[in-house]
Amino acid sequence: MLSETRVIVVGIGLMGGSMAKALSAHAQSLVAVDLDGDARQQIVADGVAEQAVEMLSQLTLTPDDLLLLCTPVGLIIETIRQLPKLAPDGCMLMDVGSTKWDVCRTMNDLPGWFQAIGGHPMCGKESSGYRYSTADLFANQTFILTPTARTTPHLRDIADEVVALLASHPVVLPPKEHDRIVALTSHLPYLIASTLMQQATSAADDTETVWQVSATGFRDTSRHSGSRPAMMRDILITNRQAVVQQLLRFQRELAAVVELVNADDPERLTDWLAEKRQQHSQYLDYKYPKK
Amino acid sequence: MLSETRVIVVGIGLMGGSMAKALSAHAQSLVAVDLDGDARQQIVADGVAEQAVEMLSQLTLTPDDLLLLCTPVGLIIETIRQLPKLAPDGCMLMDVGSTKWDVCRTMNDLPGWFQAIGGHPMCGKESSGYRYSTADLFANQTFILTPTARTTPHLRDIADEVVALLASHPVVLPPKEHDRIVALTSHLPYLIASTLMQQATSAADDTETVWQVSATGFRDTSRHSGSRPAMMRDILITNRQAVVQQLLRFQRELAAVVELVNADDPERLTDWLAEKRQQHSQYLDYKYPKK
Repeated sequence: MLSETRVIVVGIGLMGGSMAKALSAHAQSLVAVDLDGDARQQIVADGVAEQAVEMLSQLTLTPDDLLLLCTPVGLIIETIRQLPKLAPDGCMLMDVGSTKWDVCRTMNDLPGWFQAIGGHPMCGKESSGYRYSTADLFANQTFILTPTARTTPHLRDIADEVVALLASHPVVLPPKEHDRIVALTSHLPYLIASTLMQQATSAADDTETVWQVSATGFRDTSRHSGSRPAMMRDILITNRQAVVQQLLRFQRELAAVVELVNADDPERLTDWLAEKRQQHSQYLDYKYPKK
Repeated sequence: MLSETRVIVVGIGLMGGSMAKALSAHAQSLVAVDLDGDARQQIVADGVAEQAVEMLSQLTLTPDDLLLLCTPVGLIIETIRQLPKLAPDGCMLMDVGSTKWDVCRTMNDLPGWFQAIGGHPMCGKESSGYRYSTADLFANQTFILTPTARTTPHLRDIADEVVALLASHPVVLPPKEHDRIVALTSHLPYLIASTLMQQATSAADDTETVWQVSATGFRDTSRHSGSRPAMMRDILITNRQAVVQQLLRFQRELAAVVELVNADDPERLTDWLAEKRQQHSQYLDYKYPKK
C-alpha cells in the first residue's frame, strides 16, 4: 500500500513533479531529490514534498521506500548502478524513462533483495520543468509497465496502485517489445520531425518567406523537433538498434512514395491516398474515440 | 469595390463556404455553385447566398462578376478552360487552389478581356464540407496572391479587398516560387505523415498495441495523413516536380540522420538535437510570436 510507503521522487521536472503532485496525498510521505534549488524550494512550498534534497546520498534508504526515478534515461541507469551502495538493505524502485531495455537490464543486475519495475507514461508536454507539472498530466494516458526479474508481487501491487492514482491505463509489455514499438511510434516521429525542421531551415529560400507560407501541415509534422535534447539523446543512445531499424524501414517506405508520385498514375495515387486517410481514421477511432 | 461586384463562389465546401460567409455582407450579391444539393439549400437558408445553382453554366456571367474558384485544383483548371465559352464577354476570377503554376498558366491562356489572379489561403481544418465552414477561418492566416498576365490593377484592388475582409495577411509570390515553397512546407509534410501512417499500420506488431503505446509524437507527426484524397491527388499531380525534388532532398537529409544515430557519438548527436530544438524555437518565435 502506498499509504505505508515513503515515496522518493528523483528528478522533479515535468514528469517527476507531476507524479509527486498526483501521489503526494496518498503516500505515507514524499521526498523530492533534484539538483535545482528553486524546484526543491517550490515543491516544499507547494506542500507536495515534506522534504527536498539535492542528492539521493543525503537520504537513508530502507527496503520499504519506493524510489521513483524521473530523470533522463542515462541518469536513471547511473542511479540504479549506485543503489547497492546507497541502499545496502535494498529498496523498491520504479522508473519512468522513455526506453526500457537498458534500464530493466540494469535493474536485473541489482542484488536479489531489491524490488524493481520499469514504467513509461506515454505523455508529455512541450514545456519542461517543475513549474509546468500538474497532477492530471497522466490522466487517461497509457502507462506502460515492464516487469523485470526483480519485480515482486508486492511491488507490482504498488505499481498498479500508482498507475491507478495517476488515472492512467496500464499496458504491460516486455522491455524489448516496448523499445521496439516506441521506436516506431515515438522515436521515429521525433527524428522525422527534426529532419523536416532541418530541411526547412536550410532551404536556399529566404527562411522568412518559408515560415510565412507554412501552415498547420508544417507546424504539426515538425512539432516534436522541439523536444529536449538531453532526453532525446539518451533515448536514441539506449534504443539505437530499434531506432535505426525503423529509420531504414521508413527510407524504404519513402522510396515507394517517391516512385508513386513520380509514376503519374492518378488512379493508383488516389487509392494510396484514400488508404492513408482510412488508416488515419481507424487510428483516431481506436485511440481517440468520440464520446 | 466588392460592394459593386456580384461574387460567385464555385465549390462551397470548407474553403468556399468560409469565404462566402466572410464576404457575403460586403458584396453586391453572392451566388453559390455546388453539385451538393444539401449544401446549396443550407447556404441560402443561412442567408449567405441569395441564390445557389448546381452548374456554373446556369448563370449568365458578365465582366463585373467575380468568380471565386474553391474546388480542388483539377476542377479549378477545368473550369477556367471552359470560361471563354461560359463567359464570352469575360469576367473576373480568383482561385484558392493549393498549387499555383498550372492554375496561373491556364489563366494566362484566357482571352485578354478576362481578369484573373491566383490565390492560396494557408489554412484549413481536418473536417471538410460546408457545415464546418466559418467566416473567421482565414483570420490572421497568410493569404498568398500570385498575379498572372491577366491581373489588372482593378482586380488586384479587389483581391486586396477580399484578403482584408478575410482578415488574412497577404503575401505576393510568383506562381513557380509559391509551388516550390509549398512543396517544402505543405506537400512534403503531408507525404511524410502518410508514410509514417503506412509504416505504423503495416507493422508486424499487433496494431492495437501500437496504437495504445502511441502518444502525441505519433499523433501530431501523422496528423495530416487524414487529408482529403481528391485534394491531395490534384496537388501532387500539379506540383509533381517540386514535390519529388523535396522528397529526394528529404531522403538525403534522412540518410545523414541514420548515419548520425548509428555513429554512437553522443556529443555530435546532442549538438544536432540542440540545433533542431533551436531551429524549432526560432520558427515558433517568427510564426507564432507570444503576445
